[in-house]
Amino acid sequence: MEMKMSAASRRAAEYKKGGGEWFCGFEYTPAKGLGYEEGVHRRDPSSVIEVNNLYYVWYTKSTGVYFGLSHKGSSRTKVFPWDFADIWYATSSDGINWTEKGIAVQRGLKGSFDDRTVCTPDILAHEGKYYLVYQTQCSDSSYTGSSENVGMAIADSPDGPWKKIQHNILEPMADGQWFGETDNYNNGYFTGFNHDPSLFYYNGEFWLYYKCGASDFLKSLKYCGQDTRWGVAMSKNPEGPYKHCEYNPVTNSGHETMLWHYMGGIAALINRDGPEKNTIQYAKDGINFEVMSRIENTPQAGGAFRSEYHDEHPLEGVRWGLCHVDERGSLWNYIARFDLDQRHPYTHPLEYPKANSISLF
Amino acid sequence: MEMKMSAASRRAAEYKKGGGEWFCGFEYTPAKGLGYEEGVHRRDPSSVIEVNNLYYVWYTKSTGVYFGLSHKGSSRTKVFPWDFADIWYATSSDGINWTEKGIAVQRGLKGSFDDRTVCTPDILAHEGKYYLVYQTQCSDSSYTGSSENVGMAIADSPDGPWKKIQHNILEPMADGQWFGETDNYNNGYFTGFNHDPSLFYYNGEFWLYYKCGASDFLKSLKYCGQDTRWGVAMSKNPEGPYKHCEYNPVTNSGHETMLWHYMGGIAALINRDGPEKNTIQYAKDGINFEVMSRIENTPQAGGAFRSEYHDEHPLEGVRWGLCHVDERGSLWNYIARFDLDQRHPYTHPLEYPKANSISLF
Repeated sequence: MEMKMSAASRRAAEYKKGGGEWFCGFEYTPAKGLGYEEGVHRRDPSSVIEVNNLYYVWYTKSTGVYFGLSHKGSSRTKVFPWDFADIWYATSSDGINWTEKGIAVQRGLKGSFDDRTVCTPDILAHEGKYYLVYQTQCSDSSYTGSSENVGMAIADSPDGPWKKIQHNILEPMADGQWFGETDNYNNGYFTGFNHDPSLFYYNGEFWLYYKCGASDFLKSLKYCGQDTRWGVAMSKNPEGPYKHCEYNPVTNSGHETMLWHYMGGIAALINRDGPEKNTIQYAKDGINFEVMSRIENTPQAGGAFRSEYHDEHPLEGVRWGLCHVDERGSLWNYIARFDLDQRHPYTHPLEYPKANSISLF
Repeated sequence: MEMKMSAASRRAAEYKKGGGEWFCGFEYTPAKGLGYEEGVHRRDPSSVIEVNNLYYVWYTKSTGVYFGLSHKGSSRTKVFPWDFADIWYATSSDGINWTEKGIAVQRGLKGSFDDRTVCTPDILAHEGKYYLVYQTQCSDSSYTGSSENVGMAIADSPDGPWKKIQHNILEPMADGQWFGETDNYNNGYFTGFNHDPSLFYYNGEFWLYYKCGASDFLKSLKYCGQDTRWGVAMSKNPEGPYKHCEYNPVTNSGHETMLWHYMGGIAALINRDGPEKNTIQYAKDGINFEVMSRIENTPQAGGAFRSEYHDEHPLEGVRWGLCHVDERGSLWNYIARFDLDQRHPYTHPLEYPKANSISLF
């Protein structure tokens, strides 16, 4: 007798073959020392790296209230919590208790290319050097939310001193130029901004992933979230020049970048925005990502511990890290710790001894 | 110049082609008259139908505390909120204010096939008759959570009286018999239970969808939720006999069934459990479902208004309805109203005027 399988059963067999290990939950606990503080925003933590038995993280820090998108374009008003910010860093011996050490990279002097803000850092340790990549904004441009570039600073030690490259290492394509002259891609095009850079050494080159935007492309996909996705640019040298990958965008969804090495490819946690938000994806070639699992409760702007164990488990690269909390009603952003949870495979609400609640009534 | 598209861009083009109209959110408001009441559980609302300008809904109603899965197997202890329950109904002229009318279908007398509970009803209006389908449980069997069947009652008016068919119209396959003798499907097999029946008149037959379980099949998919999915059984006559579809299961995920007609096929909202939880799917043939969108904040045990406008919009069949609230910490289950929300395509948290929160600090 031939077995008849529905489309859903065929997909289930693929999920099983692909390994249930791509499915997970997340738990959140305080990142002591980087938690809620009135008057201060700490957010966008970088990947966490370990140097001499000490964990290091870099993050966006700014002070004072911000006034939101309705003030976009003002040269003086703080629009976002990452506006008029600098990059600070902290260390920890246990990943739980953190000590803020000070500024790593400061905004440039008035008139320089990065004099409005430096923020959303990521870190790459490579051959004895440390590379910080981050979003830059020039005050001249006024804050449009669509003209941000990527800067870099380099140090011989994670404690600095950091030497800035005095120009952006990646500039966005001009609006509508993503596909160049053949821009007929459903009349969709990219708006030029590069946010949330994340740097990897991959296939003998430096791969700089970043978040970018698009206009109108998926606007009909209501309730998908903001129209953001990720691109990648490559360079033989860490300092650049970086060249946009011609297959960009490499995702169709996702807000802040969070990626990691696995089995010779690159895995990605796609959060918050887009039709494939709340998925974990994998690209054998770092470019062509496929959905591996659907997840919930994802870290916001997560920066994972950069594990060395790239091949042991698909989610080794996101086992723990820091993320930020930026909730409505909480004016001041702060940093928390996340931990991957695959220990218990979901608990049915009814398995809780509800009868114990009787005393409530 | 040839355009190069990443795998994600190719999927995005499909999403766009498939129509962004499959994406949505949900809003929840009280179902007045069916809301929280101490000592009483109201849950599992049926589809909502309109008869003579009045909306009708049927639902599970029981009283008293329940003691949870640890008491499974007891012949006297109320294990679940739908244990020792009857089916009640309510009407509303506006879909917001509901009046509980009384019992529609009662548990059978001691010793009958449905003497432990009747619950989780659904309704089909067809050619002047009304068909209630629901889950039944016999007290002899003690409550194992895996031996539930489907019963039916028929009336000429939505106000009854309801005439019970005095036997189950669908019995589950025996454990492990899902694929009969060729059960080599990754050693996965079905546990025999039929929950949450939902009845449709489709392709000239009666199609009875239901939730069923599986053993070990996807247990490795950690964090996917419970191992439940849906099957379907067909019959030429509403009273049966129903024959399990040989392509079962027709979904690989999903808890309570919620399905609707669209463009000659059947659409489904897959909630809470399984690797494809939180998706809306569509099967042109009612059997082979494909993922159309990923959604969040889905109605629990939703019963949608059965719209006549099957072809106007893919989500017309789930535009509004009732669902239940069964949350940890809330001992008594109750019914709420859900409304599809496609009006605003997601609001970025930063678009809220956070500066207004300053006074909080």
